[in-house]
Amino acid sequence: MRTLLTMYTKKYLLSTLKEKPAHSKTISHQLMLRAGMIRMLSSGLYSWLPTGYRVIKKVTRIIQKIMNQYGALEICLPLLQPKKFWDQSGRNQLYGEELISLTDRRNKKFILSPTHEEIITYIMHYEINSYKQLPIMFYQIQKKFRDEKRPQFGVIRSTEFLMKDAYSFHIDQNSLEKTYQKIFKIYIKIFNKFQLIFQVNKADASTMGGSISHEFNALIPKKNSQIFLKNLNYIQTKEIKIFFVAIKNKKKKNAYVALIINKIHQINIKKLENISIINQPIKFLKIKNIFPKMQNILNIKHIIDNTIYIIADLHVKKIPYFIINTEKKVSNILWYQDIFFHEFIDISNINRDNFSLNEEKNKKIEKKIEIGHIFQLNTKYSSIFNKKIKNKKGKNTFVHMGCYGIGINRIIAAIIEQHSDKKGIKWPSNIAPFQVFIIPIQINKSILVKKYAELLYHELKKEKIEILFDNRSESFGKMFADMNLIGIPHGIIISQKSIKMKYVEYYSRDNGLINNISLTSIIKYIKKITKY
Amino acid sequence: MRTLLTMYTKKYLLSTLKEKPAHSKTISHQLMLRAGMIRMLSSGLYSWLPTGYRVIKKVTRIIQKIMNQYGALEICLPLLQPKKFWDQSGRNQLYGEELISLTDRRNKKFILSPTHEEIITYIMHYEINSYKQLPIMFYQIQKKFRDEKRPQFGVIRSTEFLMKDAYSFHIDQNSLEKTYQKIFKIYIKIFNKFQLIFQVNKADASTMGGSISHEFNALIPKKNSQIFLKNLNYIQTKEIKIFFVAIKNKKKKNAYVALIINKIHQINIKKLENISIINQPIKFLKIKNIFPKMQNILNIKHIIDNTIYIIADLHVKKIPYFIINTEKKVSNILWYQDIFFHEFIDISNINRDNFSLNEEKNKKIEKKIEIGHIFQLNTKYSSIFNKKIKNKKGKNTFVHMGCYGIGINRIIAAIIEQHSDKKGIKWPSNIAPFQVFIIPIQINKSILVKKYAELLYHELKKEKIEILFDNRSESFGKMFADMNLIGIPHGIIISQKSIKMKYVEYYSRDNGLINNISLTSIIKYIKKITKY
Repeated sequence: MRTLLTMYTKKYLLSTLKEKPAHSKTISHQLMLRAGMIRMLSSGLYSWLPTGYRVIKKVTRIIQKIMNQYGALEICLPLLQPKKFWDQSGRNQLYGEELISLTDRRNKKFILSPTHEEIITYIMHYEINSYKQLPIMFYQIQKKFRDEKRPQFGVIRSTEFLMKDAYSFHIDQNSLEKTYQKIFKIYIKIFNKFQLIFQVNKADASTMGGSISHEFNALIPKKNSQIFLKNLNYIQTKEIKIFFVAIKNKKKKNAYVALIINKIHQINIKKLENISIINQPIKFLKIKNIFPKMQNILNIKHIIDNTIYIIADLHVKKIPYFIINTEKKVSNILWYQDIFFHEFIDISNINRDNFSLNEEKNKKIEKKIEIGHIFQLNTKYSSIFNKKIKNKKGKNTFVHMGCYGIGINRIIAAIIEQHSDKKGIKWPSNIAPFQVFIIPIQINKSILVKKYAELLYHELKKEKIEILFDNRSESFGKMFADMNLIGIPHGIIISQKSIKMKYVEYYSRDNGLINNISLTSIIKYIKKITKY
Repeated sequence: MRTLLTMYTKKYLLSTLKEKPAHSKTISHQLMLRAGMIRMLSSGLYSWLPTGYRVIKKVTRIIQKIMNQYGALEICLPLLQPKKFWDQSGRNQLYGEELISLTDRRNKKFILSPTHEEIITYIMHYEINSYKQLPIMFYQIQKKFRDEKRPQFGVIRSTEFLMKDAYSFHIDQNSLEKTYQKIFKIYIKIFNKFQLIFQVNKADASTMGGSISHEFNALIPKKNSQIFLKNLNYIQTKEIKIFFVAIKNKKKKNAYVALIINKIHQINIKKLENISIINQPIKFLKIKNIFPKMQNILNIKHIIDNTIYIIADLHVKKIPYFIINTEKKVSNILWYQDIFFHEFIDISNINRDNFSLNEEKNKKIEKKIEIGHIFQLNTKYSSIFNKKIKNKKGKNTFVHMGCYGIGINRIIAAIIEQHSDKKGIKWPSNIAPFQVFIIPIQINKSILVKKYAELLYHELKKEKIEILFDNRSESFGKMFADMNLIGIPHGIIISQKSIKMKYVEYYSRDNGLINNISLTSIIKYIKKITKY
């Protein structure tokens, strides 16, 4: 069903800008304007041009696919909401001037949706009648509105923006928590798909009115801070190692201390000497002596079950989740779910070159972009709208709810902040507007180049690869700069000379290298590298 | 990339209603409510529940695919528009109270988009600089807003609705007309995909301000008028036949009269006798005598080129386009484009049973639903926003524009009006929320039924068929009624008895028949019938 969207530049709207536009403070804002992705219509209001919209569609499809796999049901709620619902929930006051309101020709008051908790609760009041229908989750991908005091950073803080918002309904708190943890995992899966470096932080739930809440924040380096990005990748290494030492007071039930550090770091013995709970002098214990049955396999669950006192290095705290690579399998371990550490202490050796993770010293992070936010709403909205359901025991009980947002525009801005260089954007392959560009050099002068470029285009199109064929009468330099700017991951450059020598040039946007690939193997090669 | 969306009813939100809801005057409104597709939030505002939204997605995908194939570029413009643009175009007054307006916290005035001519013209002012970039077309599928004086008929006349709106840019009127005619054809292709019976009518272009304009109107029969629907299909027969007779005044250049009637109708000689231009007594001429070179092949272009006087039967006028089935090929012929008739006159025999097509007597059509509207805007907006481009000769000239709308919600309502019966909706297979339902009878009592139903479900899922598996503990009658109501085209009914006898029952929503299909061939059978 999906249409293959290959394009010739002459029939496309590139709209690239050579110069850095005025009033664009962030890299993502600059590059989105320069790459012809967006244009400002008015403060906080942006039009998405073809290149930008192609990326939006790819991002939304990935999110939809994962939400559908989970079993969430896609719906579409009105953007205009009668204001009475917000009077009832009391969120009018809470949102204040951020709420866009209007009256219709009959003088009825409406608000333009910033979120849909009131509406979904009201609707489901009539649709869900039995605990047998629960748990259930709905989601939508639609525009939302917020009258920002100071719209800025392009699409990061704008009046009109695209959101994925999901709402879950549960018979009790236990079911809500289970779903919350699943969504927590799903969010990590989603943001990993976009190759985002992010943190998960406990958050304030005040505007939603629930209890537990987590923010997912993409980390944004200072301008041109390539070192920072490298370090982010470095600390992002998700493999850990565990050491065991004796506890000071052996009478305690937790007889051992487990020290968890990033696999690429080293324990700093001096630092351990300052930790009062550890028995001195420090002696590392072999795992087989502590857990004879475990042999070499580290089973984190087993460790937790044995209620060992667990100290994790500060660097581990910064990893949103981590991996224990045992002999048998790789396990994804999540904070707040699979493991709760007793303490985070600085216990590792860090090279001076490495980025300090101490929060106060953390001056290379310019800002975080909130890309996701999840909330346990508990019974706040069900009690406001009096939504009760009979549970298994026949007792009327308020429905428990959760809500889960993802900012689509912000994801795109965050990806650009993290994946770009001086030449432009460097899209991960799965969300690039096109996967491959073809630049035929002097296409109008060489029949050979034209013929071969067209052949390659059609062959790759058959393989369902999305190609942008640059058939403009521009210099190679201009065309190449544009392709780099809009961030297409793979390129094929075809010249009369190369064709005669039976090869084409393959360009990787990722590492900037150009390699010669023989005419006989180029299609196979492109097929292989574009597979995702 | 597309997710396969099979479902179990227990994890789905069916929300079907047994009774006809109050305040729903039209069949589509009633059935959309009863099938759990939509719910009203407030007058003119509807939420789309999972079943409805599945249909929306299918309809939009079909439209997107066809628009993309044509080369139109998908974009996304802000829903909030600064009011100043509408002041400049003067359409504030024209739209009057239908325009929803609001002010932000800085007291700036905005309107909520009913359409985007002003905005696209303003944006493209900066993006399109050369005639080499033209023609180009942009489209978006987004919500639109109109403060209807009297919202009614469910989603047919609502405040918030989903539209496909497209805008084309041209260097001159000639290019605009070419694109207009292509879009004309594409619209027919799109509406045919939805199996809609519709008319094309010349329309008033006043609100857009252009010159030529056509409406595409779905024809809606009176309630329960099944005879009418049959007749609509009947007149929808697109094949025609042509007869030739001599013209009265032989000195005229048009020496012959071509009579065009629907292939299934007969010429009524009595009616011909009243037509003054035809030579009396009437004698039908053989085509080989008139066009010796043509032999048996009817070449409509040839006839037009020979400027024969063409009379078409009134019934032909009602056909949006027609087919001439020659020996060599089937040609699609379009009104106003491939052929202009000199006169429409009633020249055929009609059985009394047949529906009269005379407009004045046309009392069985309750209403038409406007599902599409296309406009030649010419230079109206480019002159307002002073959008000039240098043409090939280096002369500054105003850009010519066209705009092309499709009402997505209305398409869905129109399909239901035309494809439904007392049991519910009868979706065409390509837009049905699910293609196949499975009802396992007494699944909780028979291990055999459960096992086989699950097996079939997973096998069909592998074949990428969208299935709704009804695993509720309801009576067969309730489950079957629901599946009929939501209009799934194909059904499989599995009982202990049938499995033991090595067959399952296949149900066709279209003809209402149930057939036994052997266990060995059911998957192959379903694969075959769901292919579209």
